[in-house]
Amino acid sequence: MASEFELIKSCFEPLSKGLSAEEIGIGDDGAVLSVPANHQLVVVTDTLVSGVHFPEDTPAYDIAWKALAVNLSDLAAMGARPGFYSLALTIPHNDQAWLNEFSAGLAALSEQYQIPLIGGDTTKGPLTVTVTAQGFVKTGQALKRSTAKNGDLICVTNTIGDGALGLKVALNNLPGLVEQALSIDEKQFLLKALNRPEPQLAMNELLNSVASSAIDISDGLLADLTHVLNSSSQCLQKLGQKDACLGAQIHLDKLPLSDAAQKYLQATGDWSAMLTGGDDYQLCFTIAESDLAKMQGLAKSLNLNVSVIGEVVGTEVVLVKQGKPFNLESGTGYLHFR
Amino acid sequence: MASEFELIKSCFEPLSKGLSAEEIGIGDDGAVLSVPANHQLVVVTDTLVSGVHFPEDTPAYDIAWKALAVNLSDLAAMGARPGFYSLALTIPHNDQAWLNEFSAGLAALSEQYQIPLIGGDTTKGPLTVTVTAQGFVKTGQALKRSTAKNGDLICVTNTIGDGALGLKVALNNLPGLVEQALSIDEKQFLLKALNRPEPQLAMNELLNSVASSAIDISDGLLADLTHVLNSSSQCLQKLGQKDACLGAQIHLDKLPLSDAAQKYLQATGDWSAMLTGGDDYQLCFTIAESDLAKMQGLAKSLNLNVSVIGEVVGTEVVLVKQGKPFNLESGTGYLHFR
Repeated sequence: MASEFELIKSCFEPLSKGLSAEEIGIGDDGAVLSVPANHQLVVVTDTLVSGVHFPEDTPAYDIAWKALAVNLSDLAAMGARPGFYSLALTIPHNDQAWLNEFSAGLAALSEQYQIPLIGGDTTKGPLTVTVTAQGFVKTGQALKRSTAKNGDLICVTNTIGDGALGLKVALNNLPGLVEQALSIDEKQFLLKALNRPEPQLAMNELLNSVASSAIDISDGLLADLTHVLNSSSQCLQKLGQKDACLGAQIHLDKLPLSDAAQKYLQATGDWSAMLTGGDDYQLCFTIAESDLAKMQGLAKSLNLNVSVIGEVVGTEVVLVKQGKPFNLESGTGYLHFR
Repeated sequence: MASEFELIKSCFEPLSKGLSAEEIGIGDDGAVLSVPANHQLVVVTDTLVSGVHFPEDTPAYDIAWKALAVNLSDLAAMGARPGFYSLALTIPHNDQAWLNEFSAGLAALSEQYQIPLIGGDTTKGPLTVTVTAQGFVKTGQALKRSTAKNGDLICVTNTIGDGALGLKVALNNLPGLVEQALSIDEKQFLLKALNRPEPQLAMNELLNSVASSAIDISDGLLADLTHVLNSSSQCLQKLGQKDACLGAQIHLDKLPLSDAAQKYLQATGDWSAMLTGGDDYQLCFTIAESDLAKMQGLAKSLNLNVSVIGEVVGTEVVLVKQGKPFNLESGTGYLHFR
């Protein structure tokens, strides 16, 4: 069997392209990298565990894509442009075909965003993939989740719920009615949303122009919006508003849904995939109401899909459907260890 | 059970002390950090898997210590001063006592070197610990493994072989004769070398003054020295010396050994723990022969233990014992997947 060192060399060295002459990537005890002047570094880490974060029969290409994509999604939510990433890959055995497929998945996404692999570690054990990605923001300009304000509008990118429905497709868990209603293309679309999420790095300019806070939707819209509201409330409390407790209204009629998700909803009436399903990797961000026209103009000129789905108001998170409060009989997001 | 978010908060937030006002640690999608002007970032990643890199009954404190220590050891080998680190922790279940012990181990080492935890991910699955640590070097001054030169002297820090012997203690694998010869204190010393290696960051100034190349000894002295020789040969080849192939002579009589290791050697005659055992986390570095007096002066004034154990010479790695070539019937280091 090939040694750890040969493994890394053959599969991963081609992914380290794109560093400058004074930088060092794979092959030493550590990588050596330059951070642009007047910029700060943004560091994000996400782990995917086989059987926990993806079904065990997920193709290696998709595992790799997703492991990198969820990290780039975190960079996007910070308003950062991507810099480089390292990979800690734990695999049960040395399967060259699997590794080739895995590195092809990494290559496809990292080439799209020109983000080099700078090193990592390959170890033997149960399949676990940890990516640490790094990006850059202008000093002091990082976009936080703790800076939403009362009265802000709540926006999301593209459509939500597709990743959670993709998991139902992957696990053959779709109700029979939905199974019949969805075309093969629509099922493929949902599977792709699950396995190959597109990090919303294209939103960078828009977010840095108008967003007052941002988060990426990984645990479900309600859970992640709650993170924004809680963090922002705590921030206001620290600034002296002792009783600050931000809430929100979400208008279900304004939620952006794909055709497939609409069909699922019509057949089941089940909003949980859209609200608490997780695995969206879309962005949820807030803007001042006065920035609405500016945001819409930017979205149009940059060809981006953004929907205003509610506003920061009150002290609780309230769902509204056709003008009336809506009671969701479910949890508030995907929590590990629940 | 506590959610992922509560877990992280209660155990790990206290470890994020030490950031400046314009930096952000745990609690957002990513951390935001400043890199000193005229410095480059050094990024290292190491994963420890339960049952592969440490025995399954290893105390949580020691697992945490070692996971961070092996990364700081990589930073030391690059001549970098430590900056901050992130933690990707995969655990089979939420055991608060275990987490408290784990975070105490992290705290002990990170406070010693004043290196804050800036974030990470906590997931459910088989016990796996990945640390990504970051440090700083003056731009262009990172210490590489690829810059050893013919005629350089080969040095190691402190004593070697203790970690590998510690593993024999932990697994009750010591031969009976050695078992009897070692005192309880000596066995504790070996276990500590295995479980709580001290990253050689104190060598920073000395290395940056005199070292021509450096590596940390994680896979065993012979394997890691071979990495230095191979990388340096390749580097020379790229610079036009097409046939460059560096070798070394190692004088076994000069290897720095602890009392415990000497007793083991006397009883067994087995040099493999010292040469191929791995888990040393000492540094192996080269200096120009003309820098010997300067290196020794620095080691004395900084109260550091450095031994010259050989020289870069010839085209193969040759072991010499009492003036004669010595044949080691063994591999050349700890290779994963072997």
